Amino acid sequence: MTNDLKQLVELINKRLSEQQYGQKPQELYEPIRYIMSLGGKRLRPVLVLMAYRLFKDDYETIIDQALAVEVFHNFTLMHDDIMDEAPLRRGKATVHEKWDPNTAILSGDVTLVKAYDMLLDAPGDLRAIIKNFNECALGVCEGQQFDMNFEQLPTVSEAEYIDMIRLKTAILLGFGLKLGAMMAGANKKEAQQLYDFGVFVGIGFQLKDDLLDVYADQAKFGKQVGGDIISNKKTFLLLKALELANPEQKAALENWITKTEFDHEEKVTAVRGIYDEIGIKALTLAKMDEYFQQGFNALNSLDIPQKKKQPLTDLANYLIDRER
Amino acid sequence: MTNDLKQLVELINKRLSEQQYGQKPQELYEPIRYIMSLGGKRLRPVLVLMAYRLFKDDYETIIDQALAVEVFHNFTLMHDDIMDEAPLRRGKATVHEKWDPNTAILSGDVTLVKAYDMLLDAPGDLRAIIKNFNECALGVCEGQQFDMNFEQLPTVSEAEYIDMIRLKTAILLGFGLKLGAMMAGANKKEAQQLYDFGVFVGIGFQLKDDLLDVYADQAKFGKQVGGDIISNKKTFLLLKALELANPEQKAALENWITKTEFDHEEKVTAVRGIYDEIGIKALTLAKMDEYFQQGFNALNSLDIPQKKKQPLTDLANYLIDRER
Repeated sequence: MTNDLKQLVELINKRLSEQQYGQKPQELYEPIRYIMSLGGKRLRPVLVLMAYRLFKDDYETIIDQALAVEVFHNFTLMHDDIMDEAPLRRGKATVHEKWDPNTAILSGDVTLVKAYDMLLDAPGDLRAIIKNFNECALGVCEGQQFDMNFEQLPTVSEAEYIDMIRLKTAILLGFGLKLGAMMAGANKKEAQQLYDFGVFVGIGFQLKDDLLDVYADQAKFGKQVGGDIISNKKTFLLLKALELANPEQKAALENWITKTEFDHEEKVTAVRGIYDEIGIKALTLAKMDEYFQQGFNALNSLDIPQKKKQPLTDLANYLIDRER
Repeated sequence: MTNDLKQLVELINKRLSEQQYGQKPQELYEPIRYIMSLGGKRLRPVLVLMAYRLFKDDYETIIDQALAVEVFHNFTLMHDDIMDEAPLRRGKATVHEKWDPNTAILSGDVTLVKAYDMLLDAPGDLRAIIKNFNECALGVCEGQQFDMNFEQLPTVSEAEYIDMIRLKTAILLGFGLKLGAMMAGANKKEAQQLYDFGVFVGIGFQLKDDLLDVYADQAKFGKQVGGDIISNKKTFLLLKALELANPEQKAALENWITKTEFDHEEKVTAVRGIYDEIGIKALTLAKMDEYFQQGFNALNSLDIPQKKKQPLTDLANYLIDRER
């Protein structure tokens, strides 16, 4: 992580810690303060600030709008965690576990409204900004629904999977960048190039997430390696393995997937072994590189001095190399 | 119901029936079309149109924004019905029953975003409109949380109850009227007077709802009379009865409230009997009249010819006299 990135994250965390969101009834606002305090990479607001800085220097003036994107992201986490019945988020109890599902629903709703509220003082064309935000928010919900639908299907194609993660994860990164550009007065072409950069990088980012779940160094990862394998999550790795497995490997995979009682470590080791035989790690890395490369191409085509764009290049490289 | 009101409701229903909301994944958009098709009084969009007409004639141009308020209202119904574990809405299965709670959560989220989207082409100061909408949306969520909190308490005061229904129900009526005024270029004072009219009428409207649940004519009511009594819902009637009951009446009420097994009809008859002894019907009617009267006062103070305001007066009178 570069010093520049560290400083932006610190600035964002400082401003987030000053947010109150609301007071009464506290059942509604305490969960928002809780989830916002759990940390995270703060990648999305960083992207807003970095995109803005490409065109204008006074990025201190649009921090609330950068935070809006992080607040929106946390709204999706609150509701997704209910739907996925996830007990933990960043190593702590999820909102619906710490409180209850009703609290997570209603607090989540308030969080979404707060995100809109934090956008209101954006410089530039507010209508266009909210229109883009709405489009992104709908896409993120569609992605979550596709993700849930996929869990009910025997398998899904690579194209379907990539489109799902594009919606669920990548377009919010793209929107963050576009928002920064729009607020700084960038033209439509520039805003679109940054959006494209964000979407490609976002797909690469999710593929890296899928990869880390299986191949991360447990000492550095910060959560249980193999969680997706244990829960049969349809990641890029599992889908490619199901697609490319020979009959014997396929039978072994299906056997692990359908088992209801098993030793966690044994299953993770066995499935990772099948992935290794098929060469899934190299395949996923290649696919990830392909998307990051498309991201770099979009960024290169943006007519701004390379030096100004360096923080975005550094950020993408940090996302490629991250170990957690 | 006046012919004018009938025509506005027909216009709204026609335009609602033309809305698509979205296509894929259909799990997300089908529940929206479903809940929007269940009908209802369409009171909220009517208020938007009526307020707009006080200042400008071309109300056909702001129908989408009127619908936004109805779409928002249905978002709250979708999520509230999950929280309240309600099986029926307007006599049909609720979304979380017809599909499942996850669908109702995520479809509800999309419905909220759609409401924002339908506001975007509002004439006038979009920032002010969305700021007011956010404030209203937060208040409605706060009202729902207070309502849920109240169910866990032995009793609540009249003031607390009125403040809860103000937030949960009345401010959205106020916002609808204010939105119409803002879009038509009314000044701040006029918009505020209409907002106040809506909030007072909204509180009266909810008190009438509470009253109808106990005292409606079953043949005309359209749903089970006594539903609130069966579920021990803390309505104005129950709270006032608990406040004013003599020791004997209080013991009888507490007995019915704590019973886990009982004949529905028997409980409704018994509790209504206690209400009758205490004179709860007259008390509730008086309180309802008080709020409607405050509403009429707010409307009277609005400096617009009485003839132009007649549809709003007629609407309030229709709400006072309604039997369902």
